[in-house]
Amino acid sequence: MTYFEKTYHTPGTAPGTLVSHEGADLEAVNIRLIDYTESSFIEKELATADECQSFLTKDSVTWIHMQGPMQADTIRNIGSIFNLHPLMLEDVLNKGQRPKVEEHEDLLFIIMSMPAVFDDEINIDQVSIFMGDNYIISFHAGTMDPFDPLRNRLRKKSGRIRSLKQDYLLYTIMDLIIDQGYPVLESLGYGIENIEETLLTASAEKTTLSAIHKIRHQLILLRRNLWPQREALNRLIHGGSPLFNESTSIYLRDCYDHTVQILDLIENYREMAASLVDIYISSTSYRLNEIMRVLTIIATIFIPLTFIVGVYGMNFDIAESPWAMPELHWYFGYPLVWGVMIATVIAMVVYFKRKDWF
Amino acid sequence: MTYFEKTYHTPGTAPGTLVSHEGADLEAVNIRLIDYTESSFIEKELATADECQSFLTKDSVTWIHMQGPMQADTIRNIGSIFNLHPLMLEDVLNKGQRPKVEEHEDLLFIIMSMPAVFDDEINIDQVSIFMGDNYIISFHAGTMDPFDPLRNRLRKKSGRIRSLKQDYLLYTIMDLIIDQGYPVLESLGYGIENIEETLLTASAEKTTLSAIHKIRHQLILLRRNLWPQREALNRLIHGGSPLFNESTSIYLRDCYDHTVQILDLIENYREMAASLVDIYISSTSYRLNEIMRVLTIIATIFIPLTFIVGVYGMNFDIAESPWAMPELHWYFGYPLVWGVMIATVIAMVVYFKRKDWF
Amino acid sequence: MTYFEKTYHTPGTAPGTLVSHEGADLEAVNIRLIDYTESSFIEKELATADECQSFLTKDSVTWIHMQGPMQADTIRNIGSIFNLHPLMLEDVLNKGQRPKVEEHEDLLFIIMSMPAVFDDEINIDQVSIFMGDNYIISFHAGTMDPFDPLRNRLRKKSGRIRSLKQDYLLYTIMDLIIDQGYPVLESLGYGIENIEETLLTASAEKTTLSAIHKIRHQLILLRRNLWPQREALNRLIHGGSPLFNESTSIYLRDCYDHTVQILDLIENYREMAASLVDIYISSTSYRLNEIMRVLTIIATIFIPLTFIVGVYGMNFDIAESPWAMPELHWYFGYPLVWGVMIATVIAMVVYFKRKDWF
Amino acid sequence: MTYFEKTYHTPGTAPGTLVSHEGADLEAVNIRLIDYTESSFIEKELATADECQSFLTKDSVTWIHMQGPMQADTIRNIGSIFNLHPLMLEDVLNKGQRPKVEEHEDLLFIIMSMPAVFDDEINIDQVSIFMGDNYIISFHAGTMDPFDPLRNRLRKKSGRIRSLKQDYLLYTIMDLIIDQGYPVLESLGYGIENIEETLLTASAEKTTLSAIHKIRHQLILLRRNLWPQREALNRLIHGGSPLFNESTSIYLRDCYDHTVQILDLIENYREMAASLVDIYISSTSYRLNEIMRVLTIIATIFIPLTFIVGVYGMNFDIAESPWAMPELHWYFGYPLVWGVMIATVIAMVVYFKRKDWF
Amino acid sequence: MTYFEKTYHTPGTAPGTLVSHEGADLEAVNIRLIDYTESSFIEKELATADECQSFLTKDSVTWIHMQGPMQADTIRNIGSIFNLHPLMLEDVLNKGQRPKVEEHEDLLFIIMSMPAVFDDEINIDQVSIFMGDNYIISFHAGTMDPFDPLRNRLRKKSGRIRSLKQDYLLYTIMDLIIDQGYPVLESLGYGIENIEETLLTASAEKTTLSAIHKIRHQLILLRRNLWPQREALNRLIHGGSPLFNESTSIYLRDCYDHTVQILDLIENYREMAASLVDIYISSTSYRLNEIMRVLTIIATIFIPLTFIVGVYGMNFDIAESPWAMPELHWYFGYPLVWGVMIATVIAMVVYFKRKDWF
Repeated sequence: MTYFEKTYHTPGTAPGTLVSHEGADLEAVNIRLIDYTESSFIEKELATADECQSFLTKDSVTWIHMQGPMQADTIRNIGSIFNLHPLMLEDVLNKGQRPKVEEHEDLLFIIMSMPAVFDDEINIDQVSIFMGDNYIISFHAGTMDPFDPLRNRLRKKSGRIRSLKQDYLLYTIMDLIIDQGYPVLESLGYGIENIEETLLTASAEKTTLSAIHKIRHQLILLRRNLWPQREALNRLIHGGSPLFNESTSIYLRDCYDHTVQILDLIENYREMAASLVDIYISSTSYRLNEIMRVLTIIATIFIPLTFIVGVYGMNFDIAESPWAMPELHWYFGYPLVWGVMIATVIAMVVYFKRKDWF
Repeated sequence: MTYFEKTYHTPGTAPGTLVSHEGADLEAVNIRLIDYTESSFIEKELATADECQSFLTKDSVTWIHMQGPMQADTIRNIGSIFNLHPLMLEDVLNKGQRPKVEEHEDLLFIIMSMPAVFDDEINIDQVSIFMGDNYIISFHAGTMDPFDPLRNRLRKKSGRIRSLKQDYLLYTIMDLIIDQGYPVLESLGYGIENIEETLLTASAEKTTLSAIHKIRHQLILLRRNLWPQREALNRLIHGGSPLFNESTSIYLRDCYDHTVQILDLIENYREMAASLVDIYISSTSYRLNEIMRVLTIIATIFIPLTFIVGVYGMNFDIAESPWAMPELHWYFGYPLVWGVMIATVIAMVVYFKRKDWF
Repeated sequence: MTYFEKTYHTPGTAPGTLVSHEGADLEAVNIRLIDYTESSFIEKELATADECQSFLTKDSVTWIHMQGPMQADTIRNIGSIFNLHPLMLEDVLNKGQRPKVEEHEDLLFIIMSMPAVFDDEINIDQVSIFMGDNYIISFHAGTMDPFDPLRNRLRKKSGRIRSLKQDYLLYTIMDLIIDQGYPVLESLGYGIENIEETLLTASAEKTTLSAIHKIRHQLILLRRNLWPQREALNRLIHGGSPLFNESTSIYLRDCYDHTVQILDLIENYREMAASLVDIYISSTSYRLNEIMRVLTIIATIFIPLTFIVGVYGMNFDIAESPWAMPELHWYFGYPLVWGVMIATVIAMVVYFKRKDWF
Repeated sequence: MTYFEKTYHTPGTAPGTLVSHEGADLEAVNIRLIDYTESSFIEKELATADECQSFLTKDSVTWIHMQGPMQADTIRNIGSIFNLHPLMLEDVLNKGQRPKVEEHEDLLFIIMSMPAVFDDEINIDQVSIFMGDNYIISFHAGTMDPFDPLRNRLRKKSGRIRSLKQDYLLYTIMDLIIDQGYPVLESLGYGIENIEETLLTASAEKTTLSAIHKIRHQLILLRRNLWPQREALNRLIHGGSPLFNESTSIYLRDCYDHTVQILDLIENYREMAASLVDIYISSTSYRLNEIMRVLTIIATIFIPLTFIVGVYGMNFDIAESPWAMPELHWYFGYPLVWGVMIATVIAMVVYFKRKDWF
Repeated sequence: MTYFEKTYHTPGTAPGTLVSHEGADLEAVNIRLIDYTESSFIEKELATADECQSFLTKDSVTWIHMQGPMQADTIRNIGSIFNLHPLMLEDVLNKGQRPKVEEHEDLLFIIMSMPAVFDDEINIDQVSIFMGDNYIISFHAGTMDPFDPLRNRLRKKSGRIRSLKQDYLLYTIMDLIIDQGYPVLESLGYGIENIEETLLTASAEKTTLSAIHKIRHQLILLRRNLWPQREALNRLIHGGSPLFNESTSIYLRDCYDHTVQILDLIENYREMAASLVDIYISSTSYRLNEIMRVLTIIATIFIPLTFIVGVYGMNFDIAESPWAMPELHWYFGYPLVWGVMIATVIAMVVYFKRKDWF
């Protein structure tokens, strides 16, 4: 996981400079147009952005969605068709933008962060959305396309979504993006539970620590991206854009509630992860205590004994003197030494028992 | 305790999609209707939601309460009788919602979190309440019914509650839900006191740590659920809904005070729990110090002695040389070695005493 | 010290239910009435609350003060004389309320927390005050009476306090309650200084830790009670109650300043206490280092020596072979071994010196 | 350093009670009057406060400055000359006040905290300032007088300060007080750098820890005093007092900027000091690791060797049995044991190398 | 890295006192004038500030940029030409100012902090900018000139920047300054990743700790400087200065977005750095555990064995007694001792296995 994932130009570059995504070519990107009214439905893949122009004059809702690495030319082309500000186009191409909502007279420009779990890594995909009267253009730089359930709902003639305008479509797109957070958090929750169980039942491994660290990193990443999303949604709800129908705003508030709840969960996970580090440190030091207790018990019992037997391994008895280790010559000398040693052991054991070390 | 307890639909599902609770069937759920004025009182269990319709036209206050796992059909049915927005019905069925208050023209929609201790675990039950003119509908997905004291007060003819409208009933329901927090916090308080006593008098166990961790988790869970409840109450008090009688608002403020006080306590408990982790870590490292002191004293006294007796266990005396361990041949060699060893011990003991290790 | 000191009713109890304090009887409680104008002064102990009624019609300021465990009946009686809301009376009896100010048309209801040191424990006494036109009723559930200095000032005919109305009396009562915080903080400050000195000069004891923990607990308790008191005072100052004379408000601001300063000190103490835990942990681990250094020096010097003398304690020389420990037969074998051992010790000491372990 | 340095009266004392500073007498205090217009300049030391009265009626700016421990009588006297509220006079005498600005009709009352390093200790001196039309009265309870540079600027006829009114004088006094923070922070910065260097290059001493703790304490003290000063300045700037000339307010904003910058630095220092504690703890535990590694290497190499030589120190060979230590009788027995021991050492060394312990 | 890098005057110095930068002389500083309209372009280096006067009356945009250590005289000179307040000039010369925006009638005074990596150290250069009608004066006290890309854009006749006024030039300057933060954060991000990898794969070194500490210090430095920059930009955007064209404000908002994003990243880095300290501490204590486990296993196995072989090294057999170590005379005594020892080892190994120590 890298720490700095923002795309940026060399300082001093003119604003609105567009640079193609890495690996971008005409084949890599997928431009899909959906045009619908309550009764009609057209869906097609576009080869070039220009093909969409014929749909714009109609009264139907037109949704143009680009998926994959994008070329600067295509974006510039779309920009000129829909009359979009170069700074906005730069934001579309420069990944890692902060989520935001910009309200203009007859245009809404929204940048959202969509979290996704991929290969046990959490990625944040940027989705940029323009909404004008009767059209939505969305750009998704990621590789996996999560918008299929939405397209299926659009294809059904009886769907409520078909009877409403582009503002409701925008809501459904945003709702889908926000709700991607739930499975991500669910999987993070399982991750934390696993670590917790490992820490409280088994012994701490070094990998446990790096797992906690990784989860903390992912939570920070999520929070950095979703916190401004909350703000953006709030502004959208209270901005009172004329492009928004009054009846759609209750749906937007639902989106806002979901975002707040996801952020609440992230905060809690962060606290639990911090608490897990405490437990990790505590449990290693607890374990050290246990290890040292065993060592100390063994060493403290046997070191004095070894000294005693060392005493009677001395060779002083070769001196012809009554002072030269007379114990060696006693009839019961040997059993007596054993007696002394056993007494020492018992004393030690009693001491440790009293200290509550067993 | 699981970390992610929210029910959610697959991203992209149409808003307002209703899914029955797990284990929901017509027997599991209990629908109870109470209809009262100051003089009349009717209480009955309903088999289907439709039965309530006859009570709605009357001037009396009607309280319909559903308890237990609910079926999507029943909820949809009630929704159509009372003309409730599908998003609200979805909120009723999807457990783990954030507490909130939604004010609509002639309807108040409230989601509350009710904490309950069950089997040493803290559960958060969701209670969803709709209040319209002359009626209240409440949904409680939990298994234990705490509303009996309230029903008893309603049954008494002389009760103040009977002389007032549905807004006062709403207050009593909310008050009861909020006050469930007191016994929960009381039991958490005892838990913290127990751990504190264990840590400060006895020695730290590994289970102590997991007990602290569990309490922290429960406190985080409580806070996440009660913090938005405080906001919701605040909005209810200052919202000035026409469904609320002026004289009821002093009671709501009492509810608000209770919520704030419970949150204050949660914050304090959280701090004390964090302080307990410090104590846990400190006391394990203090204990390690004690263990190491014993080991060091024993080892430092006996290792040099063992060396000394080892010296005179060497076999150099077989060499016919005056340099070959002459001490072994001294008349007072053996007592002299003892003297050296006793002197060593005394020196060590003096050293340790001065270092304040005894 | 207990964590949960709030009195609460079983959830579902009707609001305004009054329960006597534990140990409350007519003897335990002391009702004292003071009635004064600039020229007149009456002070008497009342047997029942009804006796005060004769004083209320007069133009003089009447102060009724109850001290000690209270009976529900007495409170209900006073409530009906002065026309007080049942929820307020419930608050008076249920100890552990959050400090607050409630402004009503011709009544001010104030709950304050008064800290007091008793037997090295910090208690928070609840003082409830009602102020109407020309009267103040105050309830203090604690056992020690701190209001004597105030009564003495009232008894003096020339006192400024006698020439002013009940709002100035309220201020003096609140001022006295708030200023109780200073001696409490002074004693806590000494406590922290003592612990600090112990930690930085002597060695850490296990009792030091529990002393820090206790101080942290007391600080949290104080903060929880005084923080809302600050808010309440602020609201009182800016509320513009008609019961308050303009010239009194500068005095209230002085009260507010004191409260803020006490809270500032509490915050600082909390930080210093947290810093003391760091020092405790650091000093135990520092001490462990010292212990281990001694052990390591002794062990590392003597273990190799013990090995060397062990070598020459082997009995290989009985083999009739030139390879069988020829050293034992050398003329200078024994002094040579001593030389080797002394060289080993010197090498070790040099190594430790370079590692800066002495 | 003491934790509780506030002067306070016994709770219940009448407001406005004045108590002389410790050690206050007429000699100890220094009252200095400066009276100036653009063209005139008078400077004299006053024996009593009454002497200043003759200057007040004039159109010139009069600055009366008291330095040193003050007597209650003198303060009361000044209070009656300038008609100051008793609560203000109490604030002047009770040291340890929170910085604040009080705006009255024709009077500005300001309390400021002036930090000063003295003998490696940081003291906070209280400076109380009254500004009325054409006069400033300032009280400084400390011992060192920092106002000389300011007086020198006043003495110069050409100085800009002489051509302006008392509001500019007030600004220069406040500026001087605030700028005392820079040298204090500079010295604290050096202190932190020293500790940092000690920790990262040499080994941690116990005194290092108490040095960090002292710096943290000083930073907390500074912050507690300067934070409300910032608020007070802000209120002064936006208060729009008629006593303040419009052109002076840009200077006040400069003061405010300095205060904010000093507070920024304090926050950073606090974070760095907290980080130093982390480093202290880490480096002691790192050092412990190193010590234990040495012990473990030595012990783990020599303990098995000592066992081996111990085996061949046994006396079984006296048994006339082919099983009784035949190794002792082998021709190459002794060199073989050495071989085994050297192999053991090599194995251990390889093991430690692989574990990266050398 | 020093902690206190602010230039300040001795407290009591008159406001607006100008002191030359260290090493400032006429050669060191570089004054560059650019004067342009859409069609014309003049660029020249000025010897003295006075030369610029001829350009000011013209309708073209004039940009005067000073780079390097500055002399007080030059600054004073410019101040008098452009009629700048002495406090502003003092701010230009006193490095280490807090970023701010001051709006005056026909002048905008901006101080910005420009981070730059130099030799693995992060420096904060102060850039002071004055914008009046048709002119910009900027002062950069640092040594490296980052403004070349901007000058290149100005030199191109077709550049958008040439067709706009001085407000757009101001934006491009500010944009360039702010965007310097990206490469700095990128390099800090790599630094954190490196430390993370070291900590999680290899073993912790003492230098790792000082690297973390340095990064934390740098992050604090950055945050202290960029946080007020965010505020300043916000004020600029919402200030509605008449010097700013409406169409430029969308560009300013882009600047603001960049600053916020950089601050977001700094916060995250700070959290990750704090988490790294946890890992450092955890991994040293984990490593200690491992070391102690090895020591304990070796010691606990061999200490009892050494005792056993010590027993049979005693010389009691010289006593002519059946109690004197009869084991030595047994036929299978020696193999039996080996048996006992092997059994001991097996028991120990089983014990350790069960304790999960291998």
